[in-house]
Amino acid sequence: MSPRSGRRAGDTDTRQEILAAARSRFAEDGYDATSLRSIARLADVDPALVHHYFDGKADVFTAAFELPLQPEVLLPRLLDGPPDELGERVVRLFLGVWRGPGAEHIVGILRSALTHDAAAAMLREFMTATMLEGVARAVDTDRPRTRAALCASHLVGLGVLREIIGFQALRDLDDEEVVAWVAPTLQRYLTGPLPD
Amino acid sequence: MSPRSGRRAGDTDTRQEILAAARSRFAEDGYDATSLRSIARLADVDPALVHHYFDGKADVFTAAFELPLQPEVLLPRLLDGPPDELGERVVRLFLGVWRGPGAEHIVGILRSALTHDAAAAMLREFMTATMLEGVARAVDTDRPRTRAALCASHLVGLGVLREIIGFQALRDLDDEEVVAWVAPTLQRYLTGPLPD
Repeated sequence: MSPRSGRRAGDTDTRQEILAAARSRFAEDGYDATSLRSIARLADVDPALVHHYFDGKADVFTAAFELPLQPEVLLPRLLDGPPDELGERVVRLFLGVWRGPGAEHIVGILRSALTHDAAAAMLREFMTATMLEGVARAVDTDRPRTRAALCASHLVGLGVLREIIGFQALRDLDDEEVVAWVAPTLQRYLTGPLPD
Repeated sequence: MSPRSGRRAGDTDTRQEILAAARSRFAEDGYDATSLRSIARLADVDPALVHHYFDGKADVFTAAFELPLQPEVLLPRLLDGPPDELGERVVRLFLGVWRGPGAEHIVGILRSALTHDAAAAMLREFMTATMLEGVARAVDTDRPRTRAALCASHLVGLGVLREIIGFQALRDLDDEEVVAWVAPTLQRYLTGPLPD
């Protein structure tokens, strides 16, 4: 996110300093324990400046790691439409992220999460605090977080095998075929009856 | 696998030399292009000795990387039972692998596959050549490899999020709950009608 107004020399530097401080604090303390105040302190800027540049903690996080996932943009798109097409919208959004700018950063974050406990904790807390909570809140059923996490598990594996490792049988599917196969699964996870 | 008979001093060394040569050849040439003969040549042993210690290429591969996945053991277990419980057997087998010896090597292989193209190619070829082919052959429907790959994508993601990254919402599920949620998905992927 660029400064909203009053751009002047030094703005870019200040923003970069805030992001560098954010990467450091998130990596050290995890997502939950990091406050915008502690980031401001490390960057040696007034906390109001952090709020000037960013719309809250999730926004700082996605900018710091250049993630193409902005919950405040993505969630409304997910929730806008018939409830019985939620699974389909989730799959389409997921496929769009891989085709969009910044997809390579997902690979980096995922790789770090498999290698470093701190990165794993950070990713876990971020996803729990933002994406999953958002989807879960939208799903007015029992066990919303279980349902959202089951969806995430399928999509992460699909991303790893189809986009990163490059399984031919999955690469041979075009996006519409992926939607046709996977959307009913996510729909059941999100809105289907609890299993016995 | 230990030598079948005639154990004598030097057996363990020979086996280890074969495995070291196998790791080197698989890493360099990939799974498909590596022959038992080329492994024997690098280990400077007679090819018959490789056949003495191992039941073919997949067996050498799983031993070389200490993978707790032996297709010749796992596949018959998958295929033994009613076809409409295939999804459930796949999930149970998958959960069993994570509880069994050598599970930490899966993490290592997966991590390598996300980092090194060669490791990704190796894992891809091995899974395609053994596990997926085996499941696919057992599924007497259209597009068996697509079906098997969709199952794999769900299970890999479940493994990454539940076992490696440690998503709480997934850790909170016991194995029976995972079976109840995920088995119907895999059953549909394996034996359900093709989507429109």
